[in-house]
Amino acid sequence: MEMKPTEVSSSKMFEGYNKRYKHFSPTLGCSMNFHIYFPPSPSPSHKFPVCISHSSPIFSNTHFPIPLENGSFRFDCCSDANASLPGFYVSRIGDLCFVLYWLSGLTCTDENFIIKSGAQRAASSESIALVVPDTSPRGLNVEGEADSWDFGLSAGFYLNATQEKWKNWRMYDYVAKELPKLLNENFPQIDTSRAGISGHSMGGHGALTIYLKNLDKYKSVSAFAPIVNPINCPWGQKAFTNYLGGNKADWEDYDATCLISKFNDVSATILIDQGEADKLLHDQQLLPHKFEEACRKANVPLLLRLCPGYDHSYNFIATFIDDHIRHHAQAVKL
Amino acid sequence: MEMKPTEVSSSKMFEGYNKRYKHFSPTLGCSMNFHIYFPPSPSPSHKFPVCISHSSPIFSNTHFPIPLENGSFRFDCCSDANASLPGFYVSRIGDLCFVLYWLSGLTCTDENFIIKSGAQRAASSESIALVVPDTSPRGLNVEGEADSWDFGLSAGFYLNATQEKWKNWRMYDYVAKELPKLLNENFPQIDTSRAGISGHSMGGHGALTIYLKNLDKYKSVSAFAPIVNPINCPWGQKAFTNYLGGNKADWEDYDATCLISKFNDVSATILIDQGEADKLLHDQQLLPHKFEEACRKANVPLLLRLCPGYDHSYNFIATFIDDHIRHHAQAVKL
Repeated sequence: MEMKPTEVSSSKMFEGYNKRYKHFSPTLGCSMNFHIYFPPSPSPSHKFPVCISHSSPIFSNTHFPIPLENGSFRFDCCSDANASLPGFYVSRIGDLCFVLYWLSGLTCTDENFIIKSGAQRAASSESIALVVPDTSPRGLNVEGEADSWDFGLSAGFYLNATQEKWKNWRMYDYVAKELPKLLNENFPQIDTSRAGISGHSMGGHGALTIYLKNLDKYKSVSAFAPIVNPINCPWGQKAFTNYLGGNKADWEDYDATCLISKFNDVSATILIDQGEADKLLHDQQLLPHKFEEACRKANVPLLLRLCPGYDHSYNFIATFIDDHIRHHAQAVKL
Repeated sequence: MEMKPTEVSSSKMFEGYNKRYKHFSPTLGCSMNFHIYFPPSPSPSHKFPVCISHSSPIFSNTHFPIPLENGSFRFDCCSDANASLPGFYVSRIGDLCFVLYWLSGLTCTDENFIIKSGAQRAASSESIALVVPDTSPRGLNVEGEADSWDFGLSAGFYLNATQEKWKNWRMYDYVAKELPKLLNENFPQIDTSRAGISGHSMGGHGALTIYLKNLDKYKSVSAFAPIVNPINCPWGQKAFTNYLGGNKADWEDYDATCLISKFNDVSATILIDQGEADKLLHDQQLLPHKFEEACRKANVPLLLRLCPGYDHSYNFIATFIDDHIRHHAQAVKL
């Protein structure tokens, strides 16, 4: 049971890399995959170590930092085109890449966003690492886990289940606690203290609820077609009954529209894009106006954009993902 | 057997639409799917009909042209915000959208490029329609057609097979003749006289060979990691033996490196991108330097870009597709 992530695949895109990792998750009790898109290495012109043990280095040819066993980093560089300096050491890099967590929707794995969104283009230029977890535990063979597409496998709803049968479904803890710790311990080039969180549909619900309950950990949130009021929609009611039991008061802890009145010390504007031709909007699964109303009452800044003609697919996401990346880049760089 | 294309799906992206069509192809003797990405309707500021039956219209609120049975088009418009004019008629629109044919590689259908390339962003801003056919006939149940991933289904190699068993494999005629005619007859908003052609791997081979044999029909060509010398690589030798028989002289008619000396009246520079970390490059399937040498000898302008670190996947294509779209936009707008 390897807890340290192992690289499964790597593919260059927009000068950075899509990398897939496998690891054993103690939170979920199973092996999990996740993707990271790493933007290109910091360019020498604007990336500087905070604390340097070598005197007056000039970063004209700084390469990507090499992590050392003692927790510091080594840069190999030369002071100018003619003179080579030995590698020097830094205790921490001042300008690491930021992180945007992306939570996917029902039926997805860690792959869909990486393949379909085109987010890497803007992530590359904004120096943002995209961290994309899977959507539920896998391989536990819980009876009935694969019986429906909107519950069980690929349908973790980013909560901690309280019902015995689904005790491994702890995607809230996995995303909000285990993953940031794992990134901190294994990827020194990522600064998890400057993070945003976003997602689509069920993942938009996940992003909003995790954000509101951890306002100290994330600088910004956005969502595409999120399920914002799951206690009042068919998908949410089915999932919450099974994962959390019949006491509806317990459900409110995973409902963005309920949480907004409690956790309303939101400084960055919440960005939500919703396609107007989205069938699920008309099926009353998403209920954005419930959230809008709750934000108004709680005095929380919300930008809800209704996009004419757009549906629920990744074509919609790809069209507007740049705006979301920029929204998060502005917030994490403050 | 419906020869007229029927719309199967439609999804908005970058203000235009991905639409999938189904039709019966007389050339291939089976039902085929293809995708078109339609860029947004012409903007009123720079799209004008050539010939107008209504006097001095002002195109402040021109809508997309409505094709009429007599072959002309109707615009509904009003002259300004306050005054409505009746619809007026044009015999032809002066500024239709251009077309870029995209030919996909082995194992692909008409869907991969539409889902993974992100080409719609630039196609939208350049007013280029993307036309993406499938990669082989389907549903004919020819014995052995599904036995290997590099021959038969999804592996039409954009040629007209001469061997009896594979007589339906006529992807050359389908792409170079049937599709343009079908577009002309059914999609008046697309100007097929101003077309470019591009593709990936096997589709890059298709784009180059179809272009060279039809220099009057396409304004430009480009390719990602194309198979440029199939008669000298394992994939090509396997396919050509089966489709074209054992006479190797017949193979040269579908080999870009052979064709370039014969059809060398190329005015627009040929653009080829090749990833240097592409495993298939090292497996000698692609052979770009053979083509480079042939272009030099034939005095054909070629821009071959070797891209360090990039592999054979759509991550590579997505990174550089904007350059290709612009390459074609420049040529078709001349």
